[in-house]
Amino acid sequence: MGHTVIFQPSGRRGEVEDGVTLLDAAHELGVDIEALCGSARVCGKCKVKLEEGFFEKFGIESKTDNLSKLLEEEKDFFSPEELADNYRLACCAYVHGNVLVFVPEESRGAKQVILELGRERAFDLNPLVANYYIELIPATLEDQTNDITRIKNELAAKYGLTADLAVDYPLLQTLPGTIRDAEWKVTVTVWDGKEIIKVSPGLKEDVYGLAIDVGTTTVAAYVCNLRTGAEVSKGSIMNPQVRYGEDVLSRITYAMMNDDGLSKMSGAIIEGINSLVDRLTEEAGIRPGDLVDMTLVFNTAMHHILLNIDPKYLGRAPFAPVISNSVDIKARDLGVKISHCAYVHCLPVEAGFVGPDNVSVLIAEEPYKQDKMILVIDIGTNGEIDFGNREKLFSTSCATGPALEGAQIKFGMRAAPSAVEGVIIDPETKEPKYKLIGQDKWWQEGDEPIARGICGSGIIDVIAEMFKSGVIQSSGRVNQKTGSSRVRKGADGKWEYVLCWAKDTAIGKDITVTQGDVRAVQLAKSALYVGAQYLMEKRGVDKPDSVTLAGAFGSYINKESAMVIGMFPDCDLENVQAVGNAAGDGAKLALLSKNKRDEAEKVARFVEFIETATEPDFQTRFADAMAFPHSKDPFPHIQHILDKIPK
Amino acid sequence: MGHTVIFQPSGRRGEVEDGVTLLDAAHELGVDIEALCGSARVCGKCKVKLEEGFFEKFGIESKTDNLSKLLEEEKDFFSPEELADNYRLACCAYVHGNVLVFVPEESRGAKQVILELGRERAFDLNPLVANYYIELIPATLEDQTNDITRIKNELAAKYGLTADLAVDYPLLQTLPGTIRDAEWKVTVTVWDGKEIIKVSPGLKEDVYGLAIDVGTTTVAAYVCNLRTGAEVSKGSIMNPQVRYGEDVLSRITYAMMNDDGLSKMSGAIIEGINSLVDRLTEEAGIRPGDLVDMTLVFNTAMHHILLNIDPKYLGRAPFAPVISNSVDIKARDLGVKISHCAYVHCLPVEAGFVGPDNVSVLIAEEPYKQDKMILVIDIGTNGEIDFGNREKLFSTSCATGPALEGAQIKFGMRAAPSAVEGVIIDPETKEPKYKLIGQDKWWQEGDEPIARGICGSGIIDVIAEMFKSGVIQSSGRVNQKTGSSRVRKGADGKWEYVLCWAKDTAIGKDITVTQGDVRAVQLAKSALYVGAQYLMEKRGVDKPDSVTLAGAFGSYINKESAMVIGMFPDCDLENVQAVGNAAGDGAKLALLSKNKRDEAEKVARFVEFIETATEPDFQTRFADAMAFPHSKDPFPHIQHILDKIPK
Repeated sequence: MGHTVIFQPSGRRGEVEDGVTLLDAAHELGVDIEALCGSARVCGKCKVKLEEGFFEKFGIESKTDNLSKLLEEEKDFFSPEELADNYRLACCAYVHGNVLVFVPEESRGAKQVILELGRERAFDLNPLVANYYIELIPATLEDQTNDITRIKNELAAKYGLTADLAVDYPLLQTLPGTIRDAEWKVTVTVWDGKEIIKVSPGLKEDVYGLAIDVGTTTVAAYVCNLRTGAEVSKGSIMNPQVRYGEDVLSRITYAMMNDDGLSKMSGAIIEGINSLVDRLTEEAGIRPGDLVDMTLVFNTAMHHILLNIDPKYLGRAPFAPVISNSVDIKARDLGVKISHCAYVHCLPVEAGFVGPDNVSVLIAEEPYKQDKMILVIDIGTNGEIDFGNREKLFSTSCATGPALEGAQIKFGMRAAPSAVEGVIIDPETKEPKYKLIGQDKWWQEGDEPIARGICGSGIIDVIAEMFKSGVIQSSGRVNQKTGSSRVRKGADGKWEYVLCWAKDTAIGKDITVTQGDVRAVQLAKSALYVGAQYLMEKRGVDKPDSVTLAGAFGSYINKESAMVIGMFPDCDLENVQAVGNAAGDGAKLALLSKNKRDEAEKVARFVEFIETATEPDFQTRFADAMAFPHSKDPFPHIQHILDKIPK
Repeated sequence: MGHTVIFQPSGRRGEVEDGVTLLDAAHELGVDIEALCGSARVCGKCKVKLEEGFFEKFGIESKTDNLSKLLEEEKDFFSPEELADNYRLACCAYVHGNVLVFVPEESRGAKQVILELGRERAFDLNPLVANYYIELIPATLEDQTNDITRIKNELAAKYGLTADLAVDYPLLQTLPGTIRDAEWKVTVTVWDGKEIIKVSPGLKEDVYGLAIDVGTTTVAAYVCNLRTGAEVSKGSIMNPQVRYGEDVLSRITYAMMNDDGLSKMSGAIIEGINSLVDRLTEEAGIRPGDLVDMTLVFNTAMHHILLNIDPKYLGRAPFAPVISNSVDIKARDLGVKISHCAYVHCLPVEAGFVGPDNVSVLIAEEPYKQDKMILVIDIGTNGEIDFGNREKLFSTSCATGPALEGAQIKFGMRAAPSAVEGVIIDPETKEPKYKLIGQDKWWQEGDEPIARGICGSGIIDVIAEMFKSGVIQSSGRVNQKTGSSRVRKGADGKWEYVLCWAKDTAIGKDITVTQGDVRAVQLAKSALYVGAQYLMEKRGVDKPDSVTLAGAFGSYINKESAMVIGMFPDCDLENVQAVGNAAGDGAKLALLSKNKRDEAEKVARFVEFIETATEPDFQTRFADAMAFPHSKDPFPHIQHILDKIPK
């Protein structure tokens, strides 16, 4: 008798035999769970969480005894909280019924590669938080001046700071001891020239801060030295809220349908951020308390949910957010475990779902400083588009879905080692060549069979190549008469293209691109295209002078492939550039530059948000844009490529 | 076999027989514990807490089985926290060894009478926190303006408030729902014209705040309507820190000697304040969350300890505090459970131990607005003295001890019903007349025997009368040759005066004034006198034009008695006034008036602190001032009284 097993957050599902372990089931279904000891039950790396809340959603009965009982030898690997949360070791839990299992980030075999490299950007290093070293004259019976006045007077005399500095209360608690133990020589950390937020013993030159881009699917974090501007460590995790819903709307719905839904999701992302804080400070050789400033960017829904603000009204017309201006929140009020008195700066919201992350992209790309008409596309689960120049900028958002990030694609995966990231298909034979992340050269017959799946840039590439080689038609339909064995009817009766044969993979299965995968990409690219179209019309322009592709995987994107599938309107490819995670870069810039924060506040009001999904002809345009590259619009800059496509 | 039982916070101690209940022991030792059901074990009112940490201090072995085991029938009366804290019902716990027991405020039989009436004071009602009612135009697809901007625009348009208002983050969390549920009609609470700290549905006219005077021994609290200036409820508790030390220095020592001493004491006073918040808001018919502003006054040591600031360096030369300016702290950061986004305003520190409470007395009494030379004495466990006028003011502090508050006096008690508050002794017969709190007339032979002890004003009165009637000499020594049976050698071999015979009391014992009590009062009054003397000299003046007596019991003090014992230098009695708890009044004024807060900041810098205890001739002067009224200084204004004293 078989049981259905579903692994989150990948969504991989399948039938397994009764009595197999979760670890075996995972391998069978191509889910990579770390297991250093090879099921010897000694490494404790294969922790997974038995989820219950989602069972009804899938029509599966909710019983915890669908797994074998917790073993004594498992227990030692878990904290009491984890035990209460139904954590198990995948190697110890035998499947005896339908189960839904969540694989935490740390248990996943393939750790995410940091792709958020960004590009070089010039800016003024002008951080909000700075250190000032002072040597105080000790108190005497003749001069009983209090500690704070003593500090302020010295800061005013030596550095010209205002004598009106505020002092955050908690730092007073240990101040007298700190000053005297340090023999009256201390470093004072000041926020925005306005508030003393830390006093450290002795001379402390370096000041550290954290910039975080909270995406719907991916959270990227950067620790920077505010004194030098250098990035000292970075990393990313999957947004832990993914378990509560794949996209923005499903999370708003989760918050509305569950009394503690909002606080659960808010708590999950804060916990995720704290895990990043621990990891990245350790990597940088500093302590979490050394982080004295932080910037946060996210879309408006993530903004509300992270801040534990009821997102209900954001999800329904007229979609008004609670606040648009930037907010400075004490880290302790948010529960973020950096320096106790530090502020967290949330960049301003634009309008609707276009949030601080788009403002962040704008301050990184600065289209408002340029004469030429720039189209900026930030590709994510929620896509954002900006168009215009210094005179006027418009923006909109699109429900792209996570397909371009490798999710909701049959063999999609995140950008991790052994993911297919580039593809070329021979137009004659339909035979593919592919490149894997972590490999210097294209994969060849005889190389190690390590392919695991296809990441976002690989998906764009393979779809473009399938189109260029005639495997799929302009409509997206798989061409059933290619004569290639790679184009076949799948087990579900639907057509698919075999990118890697099972023998050449690490998962022991054919890695295919299905008709459904093609459709998901079509929906995503059409949404982006139509959004851009509306903005250009609004601006009175029929084509962009340049196109900027941003996104967590953006620097690896093949811009020709992106144009071939029609992700954006025709443009000279020389003027199309991929800039990486511009939202993350903007968060870093805001961390390092007060001017950039001011600029963010201004541009958030300058850019005009256009609601495009409610336009009357939206559906028609959307349908027209489904075709590769488009059913009506011409693409002169790639016409030579389109001309070569086999009929 | 007898066991030593000590009851805190009164400090009453004595030997009891093995096997008596704690309730009986309490009655025997004159400690009043509430027991409505008369030991029937059904009312649960006689809760006490078995203290352990102090045992060593008293050289008593620390064993919890010095009390009988917890009974099943007791358990229901306690929370798990109380059980863990060794709470017992006094009627159920039998004494089988030496024990130290703490009687919580709510278990004490005689609830404190609110004596802090203050006097009428004219001031401008100009509170920092105010309510603004607005009706918003609902958001539409055409106007998606965010909620906060919508609110700020309306506040600017209707009330002329700045568009630059800050918003405290936590209120954002529920704001969208609040606004829409209230159909866009809300009341906005604004702090200092600068920050939105609350948004309530509909029209809410009244604004409430809390003023608290944290004395070393007594904590007084006042709930005021900030819109009308009316006091709507008030109350007081004994400072829960008393269990950690009677006076300021012993508490600083406790903080230094115990790792968690500071946080324990800070936690205890915050918990005490929260109990007052609950009680006083209930009495006022409002909720704790309705309190949107709060002022705090205390001496510098209480200031540091309440704020959980290391007081170590405050207790040793050069006695520099960590901060002198006023501080505004979010209630949530302090743990005070009023409105989540409210601020707590701590008035400024002057210098040394002269803290916000003295600043508070000054803004209530305003000597800095007068031409005449005013001596202000704030009587408390830590006494504060101010002298001067509009041109110059000096201040100092004196370690008075708690004797004048009725503590550390054999039959001393707080100002509560059935406490002796006034005394007259016949100079011939040495027979006393006395008045009890809560009784309209002087007690007479045949009246109910309800006397329980002597409160602060009663102590000053009885000492003055003992001196005037020749029971004690100018030196303070009991006159052994009065011929009265009331003047006798006590069980300890020391002389004492019997104020009430056992048959006339509720405690079944003679209420006496001992030689030790006289000495304690002499030490206190001498400290105050010498302090005043130094300040007058510093000011170049040999007598005050007027004397103001402040203190929690100040309005009941017999000013003639106070002068007869020499608590302050000679002055026309017509120019001596008792003004009640001026520190509490100042806290209320600061709550109700922004101008008063500004005045406090100014006067804290205007008044000059004089360290008197370190003066080289301090000891000599102190010795001289021990006599009644003084061994050297003349008292022309009461010479007629002194002349009548039997030789």
